[in-house]
Amino acid sequence: MKQSATLIPTLREIPSEIEAKSHKMLLRAGFIRQSTSGVYSYLPLAKRILNKLEKMIHQEMEAIGAVEIGLPTLQPLSVLEHSRNYDEYRKELFQVSNRNNQNFILAPSHEEAMIKLIQDEIQSYKRYPITLYQIQTKYRDENRARNGLLRSREFLMKDAYSFHINDETLEAVYSQMTAAYSTILSKLGLHYEIIQADAGGADDAESLEFIIPADNGDTLIAYSDESRYAANIEIAEVVNEPTSSKETLNPIEKAETPNIQTIEEVCAFFEIEETDCIKALVYKIDGEFAIVLVRGDHQINGVKLKNVLQARTLSLASESEIQELLNCQIGYIGPIKLPVDVKVIADHAISSIRNGVAGANEDGYHYKNVNPNRDFAINLYGDIRNVKEGDPAPDGGTISFKRGIEVGKISKLGTSVCEKLNVNYMDENAQLQPIRMGSFNLGISRIFAVMADIFQDENGFLWPKQFSPYDIHLIPVNIHEESHLNLADELYNILTFYQFDVLFDDRDESVGVKFMDADLIGLPVRVTVGKRASEGIVEVKIRSTGEMFEWAKEELIDHLNEYFRSN
Amino acid sequence: MKQSATLIPTLREIPSEIEAKSHKMLLRAGFIRQSTSGVYSYLPLAKRILNKLEKMIHQEMEAIGAVEIGLPTLQPLSVLEHSRNYDEYRKELFQVSNRNNQNFILAPSHEEAMIKLIQDEIQSYKRYPITLYQIQTKYRDENRARNGLLRSREFLMKDAYSFHINDETLEAVYSQMTAAYSTILSKLGLHYEIIQADAGGADDAESLEFIIPADNGDTLIAYSDESRYAANIEIAEVVNEPTSSKETLNPIEKAETPNIQTIEEVCAFFEIEETDCIKALVYKIDGEFAIVLVRGDHQINGVKLKNVLQARTLSLASESEIQELLNCQIGYIGPIKLPVDVKVIADHAISSIRNGVAGANEDGYHYKNVNPNRDFAINLYGDIRNVKEGDPAPDGGTISFKRGIEVGKISKLGTSVCEKLNVNYMDENAQLQPIRMGSFNLGISRIFAVMADIFQDENGFLWPKQFSPYDIHLIPVNIHEESHLNLADELYNILTFYQFDVLFDDRDESVGVKFMDADLIGLPVRVTVGKRASEGIVEVKIRSTGEMFEWAKEELIDHLNEYFRSN
Repeated sequence: MKQSATLIPTLREIPSEIEAKSHKMLLRAGFIRQSTSGVYSYLPLAKRILNKLEKMIHQEMEAIGAVEIGLPTLQPLSVLEHSRNYDEYRKELFQVSNRNNQNFILAPSHEEAMIKLIQDEIQSYKRYPITLYQIQTKYRDENRARNGLLRSREFLMKDAYSFHINDETLEAVYSQMTAAYSTILSKLGLHYEIIQADAGGADDAESLEFIIPADNGDTLIAYSDESRYAANIEIAEVVNEPTSSKETLNPIEKAETPNIQTIEEVCAFFEIEETDCIKALVYKIDGEFAIVLVRGDHQINGVKLKNVLQARTLSLASESEIQELLNCQIGYIGPIKLPVDVKVIADHAISSIRNGVAGANEDGYHYKNVNPNRDFAINLYGDIRNVKEGDPAPDGGTISFKRGIEVGKISKLGTSVCEKLNVNYMDENAQLQPIRMGSFNLGISRIFAVMADIFQDENGFLWPKQFSPYDIHLIPVNIHEESHLNLADELYNILTFYQFDVLFDDRDESVGVKFMDADLIGLPVRVTVGKRASEGIVEVKIRSTGEMFEWAKEELIDHLNEYFRSN
Repeated sequence: MKQSATLIPTLREIPSEIEAKSHKMLLRAGFIRQSTSGVYSYLPLAKRILNKLEKMIHQEMEAIGAVEIGLPTLQPLSVLEHSRNYDEYRKELFQVSNRNNQNFILAPSHEEAMIKLIQDEIQSYKRYPITLYQIQTKYRDENRARNGLLRSREFLMKDAYSFHINDETLEAVYSQMTAAYSTILSKLGLHYEIIQADAGGADDAESLEFIIPADNGDTLIAYSDESRYAANIEIAEVVNEPTSSKETLNPIEKAETPNIQTIEEVCAFFEIEETDCIKALVYKIDGEFAIVLVRGDHQINGVKLKNVLQARTLSLASESEIQELLNCQIGYIGPIKLPVDVKVIADHAISSIRNGVAGANEDGYHYKNVNPNRDFAINLYGDIRNVKEGDPAPDGGTISFKRGIEVGKISKLGTSVCEKLNVNYMDENAQLQPIRMGSFNLGISRIFAVMADIFQDENGFLWPKQFSPYDIHLIPVNIHEESHLNLADELYNILTFYQFDVLFDDRDESVGVKFMDADLIGLPVRVTVGKRASEGIVEVKIRSTGEMFEWAKEELIDHLNEYFRSN
């Protein structure tokens, strides 16, 4: 490709508000442009990399027997309404109406549509298992689109769904997908970790996330210093250390605590530790209010709470709802003297509190010497808090945190999803049985962004050989110098004949500009035709190492073959 | 691919309301399913054909130096607002708002977005010409989606845009695209015609449409019996035959014509021919009212009218607007005694009317012996009517009509589009100059539908060899018969080794069902492993001709190679 005939608008400066490293360099090197907030145009170089990623992912999917399909982006809103994900998605859905006032969404994934398709088209047990996948643009109206392609509103995803009549085949596909994702990320030269993730809480459900470690990542990972245990903070298990306090239970006392509302203020006022505080919050769970308790030094984990309760919708109550329910401010909520129909859900750690402090459900008052069970009843105990750094890990080690970027998620959903939607197959005896399901997402434009983040130095990109927009950047130093241009032309023909993808910088620019652009664009090999052109000698630069060679044109192909075939 | 592992839900019956032949067979053979009105899911077999179409189109585009790019589907509404197409599109746009109340459209094409990109990124004359293309899902909220994939709301399109600083390179790309489209349609085995089409009316603009002749097509084509002249009725030229009537001009008379409103009623009442009637309609053109006149036997052509007037918006006035303007009903509109600021635009044929009849702009009255120029002034004459069958063609022949399906459109838009949007490049002397533009669309899902329409018989599809979902349908007659299954397995391995794409019907179904499904699906070759399996002999059926052969497994590959390599 002649560089003059394509669009690579490199920039010397980029707007200072751009934060992410990947985003910065993709703009500078002319790979993407923002169309509007969170929505990007892929310019020709980016499109070439995405095409290569797609092709490889297609191959890996087909190697494990997944079948490509193409469901539409416009999905009737009704398809989602009964879905397990609807409440989660809701705010992030782009909704569209047509001229007949039918409501559609722009699909953020196709789980529901795929289940509907299976329900409509496959009844007999004979037609299972089946794994369907697609590579497609998806849409999510992110609250805060950020970091360029890492969290955009229009993005490229591979999503796959498998349907089964027994656990064995589901297990097999889950393993194959795990292996396929590992292969894909390895081929891209990305270091990844596999962590446990939220699968919705059903007993037969399990999820893994594929994470690229990154300090600016959105995913917080709890890992053990002892083993390979690592989990998304959303679900990372808290190990409950049995404590049996001998402390005497003192009589409960009501204390006047004007303007004492935060845990910090309460601790200072009562001269106690955070671990002695009972933190209480009001949640609206499937439309009903409940009080949720964790220890003062702990954070409630919404995902765990939702899973423990098998709730469909869950949100914090608003201040006005709390006023109406308890007639007090947020800082004075507590588990004592609640309206009879308000349930109390507590983290396990609450059970060990002796002579603690809790809000009195009355502005300006707390109780001290509060003891669970004696002073208030608990309807349900569960693991509903975030694990903390320093907590024991399930393997006996100690929990630490780190951050990463989720690029893929695979889920064994068991029968729970299809059972809720009443989607069944017919077994050999013509009985209806629930379908088992797997779901497998891979963020392609996000992977591209991660690659852009990792494969760069201060001068530009260093694309891996197999996933570079082109293999070779061919640069005549001066296109007005006949010897330069002739040899460059000759080499362009030879290199393309030998199946190399060549970007030929035929622009009438200074060699300085051309070299700067070449480093920015980051093709693996730069071939410069310059002062020794008349001798048939070119200069070759390996972008990743900075090595420079002078090679005669006759030996060029051999050297390049060797370089591109090695790892 | 094992048939049991993919999704091919063939049907014995389909809903009777399905009209189009292509749509019926695509449903029956399990290629597509309707998701919602005008929106379809591509099941695995359809996806495979679409992939092959895409791949071939990519190759043809790259062969002429077009560069792939990917602009987002979500486009800010503001991008379209100043576009030449906005009013045309308007009603057909899917509009979306995000949570911050920004308005987007789902792009029906990317002309405006591409112009904006060029404006933002390429200033210097040195970077021209450039041709960018994409293959992408597009959206149009059709008033009446129909005929399945032929007119759907979510569809697959190749759109390309070229930008130039001189006519020569635009002309060259226009020719290359014409040739590429011809190659593409020829490779698909489709008979096509190239007709003249609407390019917006600018002097330097020209469009061609690629049409597949079809009785149920949406495009009405006017063609000549003398030459290759053919044009979309929207723009097909009317040849004005000079007439010089010697008829005496009689004095104008006002006649009472209660309830005489249609041309038919007027002719009967006055005992005249339609050719003596002056048909008058009120249009709202860029916000101003005008009277448009054609002869009683002619139809006003909105596209021509818009082009002649270089209008941005054009619509028929409503009954209430007409009442307010002229204080009469539609049937009594005429060109005489109009409000001073209402312009009169007339088709050329009006000038030859002698002693005609026209509405009096007064309910219940017409004028007779009306003569143009004598009785009313005409602000502008133009070719603003539809050509009719029997009219003279520009080449001296006679016009006939036929119908077809537009699958592609290429346009040389000259400088007009970029001039209106004030999009320029900087020439060698740092002067701003208008950019020339080309636009090139190709409907991929529509081409697929046309193929489905043409390549079928009463039993199912007959896909062309290069664009069939698979090459070979391999069918063991009875999977419980060891000899059948063993030989089929062996052949599956051999055939796939030799790079044939094989669909292996491993289902436990009767041979009748399998054969019926095989005919429906329509792969070029069926290989049946049955009663002579133990001898190593299979039965081969060529789907397109119905020919049957018995071939020994040893000679199978040679025969198949020969078949697939021949035309």
